[in-house]
Amino acid sequence: MTPGAAAGRVIALSGGVGGAKLALGLAQELDAEQLLIVANTGDDFEHLGLTICPDLDSVMYALAGINDETRGWGLAGESWQALGALAQLGGETWFQLGDKDLATHILRSDLLRQGIPLADVTASLCKALNINAGLVPMTDASVRTMVATATGELAFQHYFVRDQCAPAVSGFRFDGIGAALPNPDLLAWLEADDLAAVVICPSNPFVSVDPILSLPGVRAAITDCSAPVIAVSPIVGGKAIKGPAAKMLTELGFEVTAGAVADWYGDLLDGYVLDHHDADLAASLRSDRRQLLVTDTVMTDRISKRALARAVLDFARHIA
Amino acid sequence: MTPGAAAGRVIALSGGVGGAKLALGLAQELDAEQLLIVANTGDDFEHLGLTICPDLDSVMYALAGINDETRGWGLAGESWQALGALAQLGGETWFQLGDKDLATHILRSDLLRQGIPLADVTASLCKALNINAGLVPMTDASVRTMVATATGELAFQHYFVRDQCAPAVSGFRFDGIGAALPNPDLLAWLEADDLAAVVICPSNPFVSVDPILSLPGVRAAITDCSAPVIAVSPIVGGKAIKGPAAKMLTELGFEVTAGAVADWYGDLLDGYVLDHHDADLAASLRSDRRQLLVTDTVMTDRISKRALARAVLDFARHIA
Repeated sequence: MTPGAAAGRVIALSGGVGGAKLALGLAQELDAEQLLIVANTGDDFEHLGLTICPDLDSVMYALAGINDETRGWGLAGESWQALGALAQLGGETWFQLGDKDLATHILRSDLLRQGIPLADVTASLCKALNINAGLVPMTDASVRTMVATATGELAFQHYFVRDQCAPAVSGFRFDGIGAALPNPDLLAWLEADDLAAVVICPSNPFVSVDPILSLPGVRAAITDCSAPVIAVSPIVGGKAIKGPAAKMLTELGFEVTAGAVADWYGDLLDGYVLDHHDADLAASLRSDRRQLLVTDTVMTDRISKRALARAVLDFARHIA
Repeated sequence: MTPGAAAGRVIALSGGVGGAKLALGLAQELDAEQLLIVANTGDDFEHLGLTICPDLDSVMYALAGINDETRGWGLAGESWQALGALAQLGGETWFQLGDKDLATHILRSDLLRQGIPLADVTASLCKALNINAGLVPMTDASVRTMVATATGELAFQHYFVRDQCAPAVSGFRFDGIGAALPNPDLLAWLEADDLAAVVICPSNPFVSVDPILSLPGVRAAITDCSAPVIAVSPIVGGKAIKGPAAKMLTELGFEVTAGAVADWYGDLLDGYVLDHHDADLAASLRSDRRQLLVTDTVMTDRISKRALARAVLDFARHIA
């Protein structure tokens, strides 16, 4: 065990880019068998016959160290020749498919079509990329986030990428969630005696974390688990680090504050991690039920990712 | 009508690269509505969940002028990033999938999966690529060339690409051919009064042309058609211009000569086109049934492709 690591197992619930940063920090801080990263698959979609799993891939690429740090998504050294050829052929090009990224989608789609569950496909891809930490999809079933907007319901990627989050949102629906079995490792880890923490990464609460929490039995199992449940705020200084979380908060009638996200998670949380920028909120957010940690949460490099992970794990030990 | 063109419609039966050269020459020489190019689909295959049609694509890329002339196959300006990423992920990489080429396979596979027939998919791709000449697959059905070898039967691309034609062949089987309806345009054109020629391009007789001829009713319809049937020899000076035709001839017990190919087509032919290198064979190959043309058949550039096309069309007029 790495010095400073929690003496036990840790579950991290993650969306895409922001979640992937903390997931990487946790993977550096913990031994491989101590960490289970559960990725949202609500924003997966079928496109041109390919099954695309953006959050799962963001985490996978980050863990493998092959993600593009500058662009903030996708693979380093990516090229776009296939997309250009697709445009020439009159195909849909609103979703940016990189040439290297395509290999992931093609291989995964082929394995899924052969009947191999998404968790096994993910394990096989992670093994090929020499990823040691456990990374699982929240479910093998098809759950698809649908976004209610002023102009009608949109499939998540149509809202997020094609329409660039322009339509005002009024709610979300996770199509297929009722019949979706949660990943069995997630359920087993939540029941483990040596569970040290459940970390909700700084991901979008509505479309990255809620799909995971909405899987049948998962919210209850998290509530009942023996370890502290800690969320890291995705809102810093009234803004989202990345993505539409702030815009969504506004459109749904919430304040754009770290506190609004804490309230959204409600009594699920034993601890909440705020950035120094929001230190003034700490007093009002602290309760008998919910402890507060104020630290640097903006992860700009490998060092800050690992530092935040260490702070969160220390906080979990403190709460326990 | 272009000066020198046949006064009527022309059907060209084509395999991949060699056939594509003459097909391009014919497309330059004829008006769009005068030419129907029928491509072999016996070497199509399913790979990584994609339906790949190598001969159809070779002709399509050549007609669009986007093929790689130097490499001799695939697209000009191609890159191989997806293939590299696929290797990293542990996927099969024996079939060279270029990044740009992938767009064709992905789009076509998606459309086929939606139930759109291959002929319609091909028409749509050709339209996007501004190809005017008619290009059709020999059938919408799945016909798969199987190669009998000393080490057992191999799917064609496993023999051709993966095993690089190393196993000695003893025969061929066109899986699915009995139930495959020939392309309806092919049948309609073969019955047309204004059919001016059926041209068998200089493609492999066993694995490029025979699948087309073996479709139910096609050989009989060609025999019965009103126009001269003319083949161009794929063997020049005892060698194949490209591909395993010479090796196959040897392994099947034939001489590696232009004459062996003419004999293979048998009484289907009204005319046969030999290269100047093989002029000494002309006397023995000429018969009451079969006329001979000796000309330059090695197509190295646009000019020589068009010149051969013109010579073949003149020959057809002469025979008629």
